[in-house]
Amino acid sequence: MRITFCCADTDAPAWLDALRVAFPQAHVSVWQDGDAPADYAVVWAPPQMFFDQQTGLKAVFNIGAGVDALLEKRISPHTRIVRLDDAGMAVQMAEYVCHALIRHTREFDIHSAHMQAGQWTFREPLPRASFPVGILGMGVLGSRVAKAVAHFEFPVHGWSRSPKSKDGVRCFSGTNELPEFLASTRVLVNLLPLTPETENILNRTTLSQLQPGAYVINVARGRHLVEDDLLHLLASGHLAGATLDVFRTEPLPAAHPFWNHPKITLTPHTAAQTLRDVTIAQIARKLAALEQSQAIEGIVDVHKGY
Amino acid sequence: MRITFCCADTDAPAWLDALRVAFPQAHVSVWQDGDAPADYAVVWAPPQMFFDQQTGLKAVFNIGAGVDALLEKRISPHTRIVRLDDAGMAVQMAEYVCHALIRHTREFDIHSAHMQAGQWTFREPLPRASFPVGILGMGVLGSRVAKAVAHFEFPVHGWSRSPKSKDGVRCFSGTNELPEFLASTRVLVNLLPLTPETENILNRTTLSQLQPGAYVINVARGRHLVEDDLLHLLASGHLAGATLDVFRTEPLPAAHPFWNHPKITLTPHTAAQTLRDVTIAQIARKLAALEQSQAIEGIVDVHKGY
Repeated sequence: MRITFCCADTDAPAWLDALRVAFPQAHVSVWQDGDAPADYAVVWAPPQMFFDQQTGLKAVFNIGAGVDALLEKRISPHTRIVRLDDAGMAVQMAEYVCHALIRHTREFDIHSAHMQAGQWTFREPLPRASFPVGILGMGVLGSRVAKAVAHFEFPVHGWSRSPKSKDGVRCFSGTNELPEFLASTRVLVNLLPLTPETENILNRTTLSQLQPGAYVINVARGRHLVEDDLLHLLASGHLAGATLDVFRTEPLPAAHPFWNHPKITLTPHTAAQTLRDVTIAQIARKLAALEQSQAIEGIVDVHKGY
Repeated sequence: MRITFCCADTDAPAWLDALRVAFPQAHVSVWQDGDAPADYAVVWAPPQMFFDQQTGLKAVFNIGAGVDALLEKRISPHTRIVRLDDAGMAVQMAEYVCHALIRHTREFDIHSAHMQAGQWTFREPLPRASFPVGILGMGVLGSRVAKAVAHFEFPVHGWSRSPKSKDGVRCFSGTNELPEFLASTRVLVNLLPLTPETENILNRTTLSQLQPGAYVINVARGRHLVEDDLLHLLASGHLAGATLDVFRTEPLPAAHPFWNHPKITLTPHTAAQTLRDVTIAQIARKLAALEQSQAIEGIVDVHKGY
């Protein structure tokens, strides 16, 4: 069996070593132009030329949760596209979102500014009931985040394309129920897949429907958010602030107005990082199942886009 | 029935209004020197003169979790001392501790410094298995914090004076097991009651036994911590940092070396604040039970000190 590795911005030698341990019988190598046909591929943002040459792949394993970059390519219809499921990312997302949520609702930035100025100030606690959290996207990541938010006793509700049912989460679905979802939300968490339907979903119209003083946490993709619309609603005061991990262009360009914006907290696409060992263990398990013609989780529906 | 209110640093009119709603049959007033004897008292840090005059109280209800300031007073042995149980504080503690833990282990301060300098930097995620969390004090607050820490899949263990058993928490107890508890801990959370046995428990000897690069979160009382010993171990590099909500003197004095210390995050005793409505509801419930000679939670054992 031949496994080819084609991942941008990734420490290839460390992955190759670990893949060879996981697949001792296979030939594992970094893809190069003109390579022999492989059976399986492990990829992150591969070039079109990769798929033009590797037309006989049984499956490609994406080493991230979002497959939007992959689905922009032309890929043989016989090749299954396999998404990474959780693999240690869901708990990272839960950490990231709860950290941002608590930081905002407990006013830790305000306390920090006071303490740095040498001022010891009392502030009335804000009732958590006044911060209903709405989660866009109730897949593996969104559900895990909802659970963590509920653990801290915040009201929590979710929105997804098709109807879902989750313990302790009020579930909305479909375009019809989006306005009610937004109107019920003070802290918006975006965890949608990026598809033609969800691109630009965070725009002036939708964000204006959030409760006054709303807060936006975007941990999905930069292209979900119309950046100028966010800036406009921060300036108008309708939005209190935002924590953003993803951007339309990454790294964020030097002249971008998000840098040092007083109401925006930025992180460099770090909310949930791929963990090499857990990821390879998951790929090994799924590959073995595919070889035995067993069903696996995480096969992408190219028409839905996730 | 007469209820007297004697609370330092508290918005008395708001409490009086709410107490009168909860006890429509009672005479409720702010204590003044020379007042008639009351049946019950609601207190926070009352002066000795209060207890010298009010010797006939059936019970005093403390509106905080810690009763150390109360137990320094001479109080009639016929007066029961009732601690506040949870009343919305445990989830606040869980929020505060998880926020500090995630901020440290996800290196959000480092990301923040880079982003503020306009630098987009990749950092390898740190494995959460390398941050075992040890909680000193496994009462109502410590147990709730342990549950929240476990929710984020950190290894978690607890230490208490007497043996306890909690799901998912490795429990240590007594002086004999303190060294093993400390040696197993990378992030130390202090939630002990302040008693003669626990005063200064965070000192050079105990903190030196934590794992190298340990992090200290003190959300109990300032007098648990020998402040100079913390500064010494931060300077030596044995400790990586600390988040402190409580101090030997509050407000923190102007010349104190903790102000603007690069490795210390400060908050002004805000980790868990008393919530008026929940607190009064709890006092009303307990008072009614006492009046009917029923058992209640939270009666302080003055010999144990909590």
